[in-house]
Amino acid sequence: MTPQVSAFRWVPPFAQGYALDHRVRWALEEAGLPYDVILVDREILDGSEYRAWQPFGQVPAYRDDQVELFESGAIVLHLARQSEALAPTTAAGFARVTAWVIAALNSVEPHAKNFVGLETFHAGEPWVKDYRPVAESGLRRKLTGLNVWLENREFLEGRFTAGDIVMSTVLRELTDSGILNDYSATRSYVDRCVSRPAFQRAIQAQLEDYKRNTPPGISD
Amino acid sequence: MTPQVSAFRWVPPFAQGYALDHRVRWALEEAGLPYDVILVDREILDGSEYRAWQPFGQVPAYRDDQVELFESGAIVLHLARQSEALAPTTAAGFARVTAWVIAALNSVEPHAKNFVGLETFHAGEPWVKDYRPVAESGLRRKLTGLNVWLENREFLEGRFTAGDIVMSTVLRELTDSGILNDYSATRSYVDRCVSRPAFQRAIQAQLEDYKRNTPPGISD
Repeated sequence: MTPQVSAFRWVPPFAQGYALDHRVRWALEEAGLPYDVILVDREILDGSEYRAWQPFGQVPAYRDDQVELFESGAIVLHLARQSEALAPTTAAGFARVTAWVIAALNSVEPHAKNFVGLETFHAGEPWVKDYRPVAESGLRRKLTGLNVWLENREFLEGRFTAGDIVMSTVLRELTDSGILNDYSATRSYVDRCVSRPAFQRAIQAQLEDYKRNTPPGISD
Repeated sequence: MTPQVSAFRWVPPFAQGYALDHRVRWALEEAGLPYDVILVDREILDGSEYRAWQPFGQVPAYRDDQVELFESGAIVLHLARQSEALAPTTAAGFARVTAWVIAALNSVEPHAKNFVGLETFHAGEPWVKDYRPVAESGLRRKLTGLNVWLENREFLEGRFTAGDIVMSTVLRELTDSGILNDYSATRSYVDRCVSRPAFQRAIQAQLEDYKRNTPPGISD
């Protein structure tokens, strides 16, 4: 069977290009693998059938001939086991890629989300002003370490890997905040990653699905 | 060479038994592998030699004959590639274990940390009162999904795997808050995991290192 990836039928414009099926589409594009999209909405996500596939009711979930999976990082790593475009074939090389995928998802993303949420989902809420310095200092500690690492490297492990897919999509959420201007090696790294043709094709595919499924009365 | 794991020379009593080298020690114990500990302190963590090993200056880092690694989840997965005690040997089985490791680290732990931090690191700070319901509802959404999954399962994938090491150590941080009392399948799951002899040996080994290195004038 052709691999299947779940994706939202439609999301509001501010979220378009950011829903996490995009990471999986990007990995599939880098690997040159075809895939089918299973479009879902809130009702499907909360149903018991989908929850048996994705226990938290999140996007994306994935299946192929071998396995049903969830968590974008795990799906990307599963694809990386099958394609040298996404990771070296040695156990050591694959373990290094795993380290970066998990660093992105556990050491960087929680801080990035806490920080970005202040200006978006939680803008104007009463706790935001006093919490901002807490969130910002947590994030800056991680960006400082990452930026030193990236100073003499084109990609996290020298060559492009699945680790860069996950790390750059995490960092890309910070672009609008301007904070990456203080970390120039990191900022150019993100630019380098998102200028890859496979990234662009993945975004385009996600946006076209939304366009085809825009609810009546909404322009976009 | 014997695998090496970095660990804190000493931490204050509230953090003893929780520093994340414990996850790696637990995996090594389950796999029956010997290991050496490299004790570190803040000065070492911020030095360029350690940062070349662990870019964020965190504990644990790991090395063996094959590879140098960081991120507890990635180290545990690397060990799981080598030991059937930690994961099935099939690509599909390993991918499922990876999904749970990443679910623990990205879907659950960020919410657990935000919630637990309110009563510990940030107790009494001005933003805490208004932020609490935000943090709590984010965490409860994840616990609800996980609890349904665990209702008819002894471990996440039926048998014990590396996914349970990471998930149960994430959830264990919530014990004192009492929130797990609302999720009984999850609470008994955590009890089941932490009663394993390998968990106990790993905790004991960490505590013994601290005991040997207690700073003068401190009792513990």
